[in-house]
Amino acid sequence: MEKICVYGAGNWGSTAARIIAENTIRYDKFYNVVNMYVHKEIYNGRELTDIINTDKENTKYLPGFKFPDNVFATSDIQFALKDVTMLVVVIPHQFLVSAMKEVSQYADLSKLKVVSLIKGMYIGKEDIKTTTQTIESVLNLKPSVLSGANLANEIANREICESTLGCMDDTEAELWIKAFQTDYFRIMHVKNVYAIELCGALKNVVAVAVGMAAGLGYGNNTKAAIMRIGFMEILKFAQMLYPSTAESILFESCGIPDLITSCLGGRNFKVSAEFVKTGKSIDVLEAEMLNGQKLQGPLTSLEVHEYLSNVNKTADFPLFTAVFEIVYQNKDAKPLLESLFKVSRQSIL
Amino acid sequence: MEKICVYGAGNWGSTAARIIAENTIRYDKFYNVVNMYVHKEIYNGRELTDIINTDKENTKYLPGFKFPDNVFATSDIQFALKDVTMLVVVIPHQFLVSAMKEVSQYADLSKLKVVSLIKGMYIGKEDIKTTTQTIESVLNLKPSVLSGANLANEIANREICESTLGCMDDTEAELWIKAFQTDYFRIMHVKNVYAIELCGALKNVVAVAVGMAAGLGYGNNTKAAIMRIGFMEILKFAQMLYPSTAESILFESCGIPDLITSCLGGRNFKVSAEFVKTGKSIDVLEAEMLNGQKLQGPLTSLEVHEYLSNVNKTADFPLFTAVFEIVYQNKDAKPLLESLFKVSRQSIL
Repeated sequence: MEKICVYGAGNWGSTAARIIAENTIRYDKFYNVVNMYVHKEIYNGRELTDIINTDKENTKYLPGFKFPDNVFATSDIQFALKDVTMLVVVIPHQFLVSAMKEVSQYADLSKLKVVSLIKGMYIGKEDIKTTTQTIESVLNLKPSVLSGANLANEIANREICESTLGCMDDTEAELWIKAFQTDYFRIMHVKNVYAIELCGALKNVVAVAVGMAAGLGYGNNTKAAIMRIGFMEILKFAQMLYPSTAESILFESCGIPDLITSCLGGRNFKVSAEFVKTGKSIDVLEAEMLNGQKLQGPLTSLEVHEYLSNVNKTADFPLFTAVFEIVYQNKDAKPLLESLFKVSRQSIL
Repeated sequence: MEKICVYGAGNWGSTAARIIAENTIRYDKFYNVVNMYVHKEIYNGRELTDIINTDKENTKYLPGFKFPDNVFATSDIQFALKDVTMLVVVIPHQFLVSAMKEVSQYADLSKLKVVSLIKGMYIGKEDIKTTTQTIESVLNLKPSVLSGANLANEIANREICESTLGCMDDTEAELWIKAFQTDYFRIMHVKNVYAIELCGALKNVVAVAVGMAAGLGYGNNTKAAIMRIGFMEILKFAQMLYPSTAESILFESCGIPDLITSCLGGRNFKVSAEFVKTGKSIDVLEAEMLNGQKLQGPLTSLEVHEYLSNVNKTADFPLFTAVFEIVYQNKDAKPLLESLFKVSRQSIL
């Protein structure tokens, strides 16, 4: 019997808990109850766990959608992890290491399987660590990843979509598919983990570039061309780090479809369009448009740039570099985006 | 010295003539004057050729954009083709055979190079002929193709974009690149022709499916997933007909980028959204929304279905088949689109 805990109670974590709770009831393999570990938080004068368990709704992060009765929220990490064999990690990336250290104290690691639903990653000047590599370095096990064109609210609304499960072990993959797949949320399994995570992080940089093009008044031809240059750079970056990466990873939901979704109006797209239209700084726009939350795309472009500078490869990634220069060096967006097209570009065929 | 004629004066043909006329002046290889063969037509009481040559504007098909002085329009086929060594074919697909028969009479075929800018193709019950194959069967030469995410008006407006040149001969490819490439219209050359043409025809069927999903109220996750299923079916179809087709053809402008552009609001997308929203027939919507012009996507789905039925392969192409059944067999769109996701789908990795 497998027991599942969803570690994190944000928008996507709450959505995932709802999906999983539908499935634990359908299959004998699973304990019915799905634990949801909730970082202690007071909302409207009440504990968020109390709101979730009593009102059956995460009114702060996923308002309007009810939980089934078999989701149990707790801020007691020891209790949340008791007997857990399958852990779904879905928290902001910056809390990952401390969270995994806690997990290592309270979970039975010999039986634990972990899947990451996090799209961020650590990109340092000298090394790059995907989320699962960070988890692995703390827990000493090989986590899987789930990533795709998955706007949480659309899924909560039961709109049909797909997602990519990256998992090296077929038996474990079968369990994750049983845990996640529903009529409206379709899982495809591939034996690749790191490239999937790179797609999830780097697509935000591309969405920034496409948003800038939209803000400059360019139409669909140009946006499609920037997406194309973008997904080719993502592939090149993935193959630079993991040379065995098959180009067909871009065909999975985690690849081009996720990129398309982000470029059709995600927050990176919208804020970047405003950035070139208004001339306001990203900081100011984050304050105005996102309640001060940080936008991932610009930050990722900065980290990617520092890494690429260090390995002397900025010239191979003109789009990533252009986004960095526009956001962090106040360079003019229009000539820089146009310069992406001036390079004589060899076809890949 | 090469002399160029653009055969066709519609929206895309006029745009192409403008681009080429910028280039014939820049390179010594070309005669400056670009002929444009215009099917005899009276518009606002004047010959269209007279309007183009006098007012320097195709006020019927590309209003608002001036031609350079070195574009010369004529409805005299013999004159249009005199000394021509490079022919750009850009006419509605149904006129192709008769047009090429005329060309074979008046052009010096021993020196002629041809590129097709046509996105349609002939799909019969028992055989499929791409546009270049049709041209080849009349002229007995190997035409090239130019296809990409290329909405004509955006290009006429000098918005940056990319296009794919499919050409088997490197020397000829160099000429076409010189003829077409500008700062804002970037050409990438691949040694493939037929698969490029399939992408250009079949993407319209996918745009119909995505339009239907939009009309049913589905969001971006679902649209991205249908695009994904769609481009995988296009690839499968191309590999069925031409087994050596590399999957990376989808990464070129003629592949996924052109598909994205069509799914972001082309006519196939828009009419199909109305089709599921209003319940009106495609015929009625063509009359209401397109001045009675035929929509390519539904028609292509019908032809594709007849071909697939004949070779007993409809089950391998559930999206193409669903579009056909929804449009021509009055089946309910929602369950059929949802059924695309129910198949247990093997990953390609």
